[in-house]
Formats: sequence, C-alpha cells, structure tokens
Amino acid sequence: MSRFVILGVGAIGGTVATLLSNAGKEVLGIARGRQLEILREGGLTLRTPMGSQHAHFPVAASPQEAGLRPDDVILLCVKTQHTEAALLQLREAGMTDQPLFCLQNGVANERLALRYFPNVHGVTLILPADFVSAGEVVAYGAPCTGLLDIGRFPGGTDEADVALAEALTQAGLPSEVRGDVMASKYRKLLVNLGNIVGAALGSDEGTEEILAKLKAEGEAVMAAAGIAVDPADRDAKRRVGKMKISEVPGVTRVGSSTAQSLARGAGSVETDYLNGEIALLGRLHGVPTPANAWFTDLAARLVREGAAPGAVSKADIAKALGL
Amino acid sequence: MSRFVILGVGAIGGTVATLLSNAGKEVLGIARGRQLEILREGGLTLRTPMGSQHAHFPVAASPQEAGLRPDDVILLCVKTQHTEAALLQLREAGMTDQPLFCLQNGVANERLALRYFPNVHGVTLILPADFVSAGEVVAYGAPCTGLLDIGRFPGGTDEADVALAEALTQAGLPSEVRGDVMASKYRKLLVNLGNIVGAALGSDEGTEEILAKLKAEGEAVMAAAGIAVDPADRDAKRRVGKMKISEVPGVTRVGSSTAQSLARGAGSVETDYLNGEIALLGRLHGVPTPANAWFTDLAARLVREGAAPGAVSKADIAKALGL
Repeated sequence: MSRFVILGVGAIGGTVATLLSNAGKEVLGIARGRQLEILREGGLTLRTPMGSQHAHFPVAASPQEAGLRPDDVILLCVKTQHTEAALLQLREAGMTDQPLFCLQNGVANERLALRYFPNVHGVTLILPADFVSAGEVVAYGAPCTGLLDIGRFPGGTDEADVALAEALTQAGLPSEVRGDVMASKYRKLLVNLGNIVGAALGSDEGTEEILAKLKAEGEAVMAAAGIAVDPADRDAKRRVGKMKISEVPGVTRVGSSTAQSLARGAGSVETDYLNGEIALLGRLHGVPTPANAWFTDLAARLVREGAAPGAVSKADIAKALGL
Repeated sequence: MSRFVILGVGAIGGTVATLLSNAGKEVLGIARGRQLEILREGGLTLRTPMGSQHAHFPVAASPQEAGLRPDDVILLCVKTQHTEAALLQLREAGMTDQPLFCLQNGVANERLALRYFPNVHGVTLILPADFVSAGEVVAYGAPCTGLLDIGRFPGGTDEADVALAEALTQAGLPSEVRGDVMASKYRKLLVNLGNIVGAALGSDEGTEEILAKLKAEGEAVMAAAGIAVDPADRDAKRRVGKMKISEVPGVTRVGSSTAQSLARGAGSVETDYLNGEIALLGRLHGVPTPANAWFTDLAARLVREGAAPGAVSKADIAKALGL
C-alpha cells in the first residue's frame, strides 16, 4: 500500500493526516517550526462535533528529509502562496512521476504543479476546519468531516484517483472521482470569494449583498472564459444527511482560512488566488471585476498593516463597491 | 516625462538602463548586493561592438526604497523565477495601475503580473547580452544593440507602448509596437529552447539536430493549444542591416543567459519557463514533449549539483533523446 506524504499539516493537512492514520494508512507529515516540534513530540489532536481523536504519525522537516519513495502519494496541503516553494522542495527531493494531489482552495495550484511534474490531480475540499494551535486542529462537519471530489488535471481519472478516494472515504471523508474535477473546484472558488469578506469584517452576518456581487462577477468571467463550472446547487444537495457545519464543544470558530491567517498574523493570505483569480480572469477576458479586485487589494493592505479580523466596516465596503 | 524604473539591473536591465540614461531619460535602477554597491559607487559600463559607454543613474535596493510615483513606468528585467517576488515587492511599495513592461524571456511573466496589476505589457527581446561582473554588461548586437516588440497583455496597444517604443528606439533599440506581442514572444520562446543545450554542453556547435527536436515539440504544442506564433523567418528578416551578433574586443562570450547562470552558480536557471513551458503546454493539451521535459529536468539537476557549462556530453543527450 502506498504511503501518503502530507505536505503542510495545517487545518486541511492535519485533518486528513489524522483521519488517514487512524484508518490504518501509512502517513508521513511534512511540517515546519513549532508545528513540527509538537507533532513529533505528541502527535496531533483532531476535535470534531463527534468527539476528539489523536494520531501520532512520523513527521519530517522537508521532502528531502522525508526521503521520497517511488510509490508515494503526495498530498499538497499548503496555501497557494506557498505552493511554488513546496514544488521546488519536492523536485529537490527527487520527486518525478508520483501522483501529486492538490488539496487546496483556488484553481491555480494544479497548473503550477504541472510545470514540474507530469502526474497532477485536483481535489475539491468541502472541509470546514481550523488550525487552532500547534498540535491541534478542529473540523466542524458532521456526521462526515468533509466531502471531496478527486480527479486528474487537466481532466480525466486514473487508478490513483480511485485509490485515494477509497482511502479517504474509508477514513470518513466521502470522496467522488470526477473526470472534470476542475468544474467542481471552480464552483468551490465562487464560494471562497466570501472568505475575505468575513475576515475583513470579523463576521459573516449581513454580507449577502456583498457576496452576491463577488459571485456574480466570478460567474461572469468564468462564462466569458468558457470555463465549465458545476451547478450552484450540487454542493447543497450532496451535503444533505452527510455533512452539516456543527458546533464543536468548547470551540468558537475564527472563520474562514483567510480570517485564520489574519488572526495569526501569518504574513500572507490566499486572497490573491481566490478573488485575485477572478480579477486575473477578468483582465484576461475583458470583463470588469471591480469588487473582486478591490477585495484583493484590501487583503494585501490588511496583511501589510498587520490588521486583525474586523478591521474594516460594512460602510467602508459599501462605499468602495457602490452598494 | 515619465521615469523608467528598471527592476533588475543584469544583462537586459543594465543594457536598457544605460542606453535610456545616456539618451537623456530619467532612469532609476533597482538592484541587490554587490551590483547595488558598485552601481551606486561608480555606475555601469556597457561594452558593445561599437565601443563602450558609461552611465551613473540612481539605484535603490527595493521598490519601497525607490518610492514609486504615479507616472512611473516599470520595466521588469529579472528572470521569471524571480518575478513573483518582484511583483510582491512592487505591490508592497504601493504600485497600482502604472504600466508594467515585462522585458523577460518566456511567456509566463505577463500572466503572473496580471494577477496583481491591471496594466501589464509584454516585450520581446532580441538583445544578446551578458552580465559579466558587477558594474559591467556586454551586448553583442551591431549596429543596433537590440530589436524589441512591445504591446499590451493579453493583447492590444496603448499610449504607454508607443511612448516606450519611442524612448527605446531613440536610445538605439529599434522597437515595434505590436497588437499581438505574445505571438512574437512565443516565437522567441522557440529560439530560447536551445539555451539549456549550449549551457549543458558548453558550446552550441553541432547541436542542430537537438535544437530541431526541441523546436518541433514546441511548435506542435503551440499548434495544439491554438496559440498564435510569428512566422519563423520574421526575426531573420528584420535583423538584416540592423542587428548582427558581433565581436566585442577583448570579450569571450559565455553564451546564453542559462549558461551565464550556470557559470556563476546562480542557484537557479530559467529553463522551467522555457523548455518547461513547452512541457507544461504538452501536459495541458495532451502532446508528448519528451525532449523538452528531459532538458527541464536536466537543468534542475545541473543547478542542484552546481555543475558548470559543459557538464554534459553530446552522447548523453543523444542517448536520452533517442537521436
């Protein structure tokens, strides 16, 4: 059986690593700094609405230290702004044609990876989770922790997709193999356009009009670019009876991964690859996307100023967007 | 009159900065390390077949230190592997909608820049030049030092293209404004596929068969991707009477920019964005590109091993490529 090398043990990587490890799969994490130390000492605790679980799997500081095997399966779980560095590390460590799965939001990672490696796959994440502190991750989905789509990039499916989907489904993350996984990732991108809104305001309450504007721009540029996108209601339909965002006892959710990055002063946010992707597509295809461009610039400014979630008011946004 | 901010004062940036400065334009360079020190102390010497010239223009360590103005024109002259970092520095320094010109080989830079900035332009460089040592650049074209194409990305032209073309032409670099500048850059990319060959072998002699194979793969993927490319003979035709690669007294040419990077142990080469671009396009469009993929991997290995130009034999290449 293949080993799963999980590059980036944050909210997503940590959840997947814990679930796969506890389902009896061989897992190797790659982490840095305090997270690396804590994971080596005591392993990782995953808290969910169904209870807590703990896993103690081996962790390396880099792919080079990990020592890649020809039959490894690589799960890339960093944010897009860290993808390029991770890919160069993988190549440095001798990676060639092992399957590389992008368990990442946005739609830019797969193309970045395909420049260096021939065997690239996309994974859509419906997996609400927070990286709380070193050694601890919280995931809010119940009864299933997440729902995933998996397929080869730019299209098609192969046995590696099937094998990963089986392993993840068995581990509690029902996964579908998709010949057009990017259609699913573009739909998810439209959802993620709201991440910066909640992060900037410190709350998602009363943001419907702003989200609608961001999404309308996104849908317009995707249509202009001829990009296939899943129907809007697929996600809601498949969640029924499988996954609902639920309370985890004793935990107050910080919000989206963007809010988490701002809250921890991470020094970067992935907005350039969410709202910024829409701005880029708009510029490529001659479609105006002022709201997404504005939020992309806003995110850069908030990071630069070290702002916390809630630094911006609804009035600021309404004025900028002409609402 | 706009100020020209030249980000990256190497072979290309140094040549352009010197010529623009000596043509009476306001130039500000952005450089690092030893080059920054030397340029500040004594300026830059450009040696050409027509003689040497010297320019002493202001140089900053970063766009932030430079202090960008609303009417600045940015000329990006770094290699593609350094583009992302340069773009983030520009944003950090407050860049918004100033025109950004990519005076860079490959076709990836313009798309990288368009994610952050709305006003992006491509420039095709027929400008053979070497960065010899701090404070000195050699350019081999005569009687003109180079020939450039300039246009907006992804297409079209505007007054900024016209203004830059006029300034460069006046400075001795005849420049055409093109509504489809990327067609010219894709043609140039096909030429640059040979950079790694000469760098690996230490010489361009007797490499015709290898170059033909690399170029044929490149033309096949561009056709499959529906990419418009300039006719093969345009470059040779326009050079007649204007630009011929010539001897510079006392200088032995190291070779392509890739050979220069290997020779100085620069730690990276741009092959990922030359031959690697063909490999990426091949993977995206289902066209085999084994020769370009092999050379891309080879370049990464040569950098990793700190190899000098000439580390590979023609027999190694013939075997790998089935020649």
